[in-house]
Amino acid sequence: MGLNLRLVTRILGTLTALIGIAMLPCIYVSLVYGEKEVALAFVKIILPVTGCGLAISKWMPRGQGNLKIRESYLVVTCAWLFASIIGALPYLLTGTVDNFVDAFFESTSGFTTTGATLIYNVEALPKGILFWRSFSQWIGGMGILIFAISLLPALGVSGQAMAKVETPGPSLNKITPRMADSAQILYLIYIAFTLLATVILDFSGMSFFDALITSFGSVSAGGFSNYSDGILHYHSQFIEFVAAAFTMLACINFNLYYTLIQRKWRDFLANRELRAFLLLLAVSVVLVSLNLYFSDSYATLKDSFRYGLFQVTSFLTTTGHYNADFNAWPSFSKMVLFWVMLVGACSASTGGGIKVMRVLLLVKQLSRAFYRKLHPRAVIPIKIQGKPVPPDRIITTMSFLYVYVFVFLFSSFLLSFENLDLVTTFTATASILNNVGTGFELVGPGGLFHVFSDPSKIYLCFLMMMGRLELFSILVLFTPGFWNSDR
Amino acid sequence: MGLNLRLVTRILGTLTALIGIAMLPCIYVSLVYGEKEVALAFVKIILPVTGCGLAISKWMPRGQGNLKIRESYLVVTCAWLFASIIGALPYLLTGTVDNFVDAFFESTSGFTTTGATLIYNVEALPKGILFWRSFSQWIGGMGILIFAISLLPALGVSGQAMAKVETPGPSLNKITPRMADSAQILYLIYIAFTLLATVILDFSGMSFFDALITSFGSVSAGGFSNYSDGILHYHSQFIEFVAAAFTMLACINFNLYYTLIQRKWRDFLANRELRAFLLLLAVSVVLVSLNLYFSDSYATLKDSFRYGLFQVTSFLTTTGHYNADFNAWPSFSKMVLFWVMLVGACSASTGGGIKVMRVLLLVKQLSRAFYRKLHPRAVIPIKIQGKPVPPDRIITTMSFLYVYVFVFLFSSFLLSFENLDLVTTFTATASILNNVGTGFELVGPGGLFHVFSDPSKIYLCFLMMMGRLELFSILVLFTPGFWNSDR
Repeated sequence: MGLNLRLVTRILGTLTALIGIAMLPCIYVSLVYGEKEVALAFVKIILPVTGCGLAISKWMPRGQGNLKIRESYLVVTCAWLFASIIGALPYLLTGTVDNFVDAFFESTSGFTTTGATLIYNVEALPKGILFWRSFSQWIGGMGILIFAISLLPALGVSGQAMAKVETPGPSLNKITPRMADSAQILYLIYIAFTLLATVILDFSGMSFFDALITSFGSVSAGGFSNYSDGILHYHSQFIEFVAAAFTMLACINFNLYYTLIQRKWRDFLANRELRAFLLLLAVSVVLVSLNLYFSDSYATLKDSFRYGLFQVTSFLTTTGHYNADFNAWPSFSKMVLFWVMLVGACSASTGGGIKVMRVLLLVKQLSRAFYRKLHPRAVIPIKIQGKPVPPDRIITTMSFLYVYVFVFLFSSFLLSFENLDLVTTFTATASILNNVGTGFELVGPGGLFHVFSDPSKIYLCFLMMMGRLELFSILVLFTPGFWNSDR
Repeated sequence: MGLNLRLVTRILGTLTALIGIAMLPCIYVSLVYGEKEVALAFVKIILPVTGCGLAISKWMPRGQGNLKIRESYLVVTCAWLFASIIGALPYLLTGTVDNFVDAFFESTSGFTTTGATLIYNVEALPKGILFWRSFSQWIGGMGILIFAISLLPALGVSGQAMAKVETPGPSLNKITPRMADSAQILYLIYIAFTLLATVILDFSGMSFFDALITSFGSVSAGGFSNYSDGILHYHSQFIEFVAAAFTMLACINFNLYYTLIQRKWRDFLANRELRAFLLLLAVSVVLVSLNLYFSDSYATLKDSFRYGLFQVTSFLTTTGHYNADFNAWPSFSKMVLFWVMLVGACSASTGGGIKVMRVLLLVKQLSRAFYRKLHPRAVIPIKIQGKPVPPDRIITTMSFLYVYVFVFLFSSFLLSFENLDLVTTFTATASILNNVGTGFELVGPGGLFHVFSDPSKIYLCFLMMMGRLELFSILVLFTPGFWNSDR
């Protein structure tokens, strides 16, 4: 049986139309700030994009059957690719960015919540474009497919299969019988966080626009700002703290918040992944703060803690915010930042990285491996929260990590052709693959990805999507078995 | 049942005596070069060490029972620790090195075939000490236990259990019914390589002593030399080529040479690990040579090939020789060197690293993981040379790699307290863990490990042994289950 390409095309048509519609608020923002030309540019994009999308989804003959797993991979990958391409158009049409590669990079960096940028003078951008840049990141935070499913329950798609392919985090639960309902509940929680952060930031003395953009950048774990120096612009400990707190909240498994709504406090508190996440955060913050203090990087313990807390949170949640020049920090602190960025957030959250759950499973598997070295014949299942984990899932997790290592290896090889220093090469690779957007040295605080050539920028876009879709969804498209119709 | 400590002590007594006896040739070398004081120092060490060892092994009441797996771990770890401590004494007694930590580092670096050094002016050392430094590396090349078993078949030990614990490479075969016979055959092959290399190097115009030391450093994949600038001292393309060729030969599975002796040519040529090793070597050499040539690092393609071939061989075989200042090479070439050093040699060879066999198993497992993403219910065993690999072995291999990553992570954390640049910290960790002995930047060509403080040096010694014994053998001693007598 071949791929049901008709069905795939129809769904992609609907998704394209939706991405066009998602640009509507940008017209409003542009008009509020009197940017007529920008508003017009958005109209020029929305009309043909939405029109074409709807036409394709309407006129494509309705094939029989449901979306199979292979087709889901294709839909998800194309959806992210199309979104990134369409998202690049506003930058080009307003003349904000003058070539397609850079615009595509900026757009991909938005949707994938990476937050890496090529724009020198961010404050000079029109408000409408700034809004689109951060709004695309906000949409990407929860995943483009989840966005589509929550808006269009009748997409005619087995939502669950697709959500599984899009965010194959190890523990995405079906919290309600219908996937569309689950998607809507998750979105409501997401919107609540966004509004709450905006209100708090607004009260702290920011303009409403600044508050909204900062809120988008925080809850999506993306890190885009409307200032070139990002969160540093405000020079406010309170704002840094609010941003850090909300990125942290957004990087906890969203299904857990649903248990909170159901007043299952114990389920929330007993969650192993959450505990491990908080423990890792606390230990890293303490280690970095002490290291900063004793290496005389900052004069007071309070300052060391302020910068340590913010940077560790920013890297662990894969946000990429910065409030200090950590390039100048001692090696140990940099090492901690580098490793927590690889670990990343909790599964089924807006953050990227390997995910705490996988690292947790790994640690358990390792302690069992040691036990078995001494007792080769012992059979002991690995348990998480009292429930045995099937061996198949352990092998899947381990395989994920190896694919991760291979992709990392291959990418750092490719990027090393740019002949930048090794620290920049390695941390840029890690930063892009984990959707952080900030690394060390040339791509460190305030550093732009302009240091890379055009072919590398395109590869980096591909890498951002790989990271966001947790590798397999894109990579399977490159296996010969995928396109082989006779399986 | 508790640990049979009596038996362990008896075996360790015998091993201690053997290490003393292994120093006898040093007296001969010292006397040949008229170094009476050095010869006397060796006598002062050999007599008490051998005496104590023999006394312990003789007077310790003979317990019943054989060595169990837990006790083997203890014997192997202690054997390497004792050897390194005893091996440090000649440096101290001759005043060559003036403190214990440095002497212990030099000795451990020798036995583990790492080849990292703390000695500035190597050519100023007495010949007797130079000989011991390289001879200890030669002994370590095949493993201290294999050395003991081949010399003393009647050690009263289940040799196979111990050899398994000492070099748990994934494919150490029992080539003859008795382990002691196997050990002797492997040693004869090793000695044959050493003599052949010495003769060829001697004919190339080196002094016999230089030839012997260079041969020891090459066939053991250790890299110690009797000159501060190592192989560069000779400025001879022929010598570089001979050294590279013999390190390469020493890094092929020694069991394969036995198939050659048995005239099973096909078994040799069909070996997947050997093929993968040669393929990796060839591809890396071509990539590095081209990169060096096109980046104008060297004027001619011939020179690029000369330095590319030598450095890739040196890093892939975990020897750590250098014939060029590769710190100044383009990033891509450095990246290749770094990654091949992690892969390392073939299993059951004198080289270190993760081992080609493990990487091969991993690649197979990964391609299966992709297949299963598309066909979740398919059951397909992984095959190497037509034989299915049991799933247990795959999980063991994967676990090994994770332990490796964790040890690497933890070690780079510890070493980052030295506050050296990140490239030095990372490559020093990798270089020590993989028993290479040379990294980049401060620990690059000609770089000494003096940049590290005493506590770090001791940790590095521990790390060299961990790498040499492939992690588990030492680490299990630190698990609570090991010392818990009621299992």
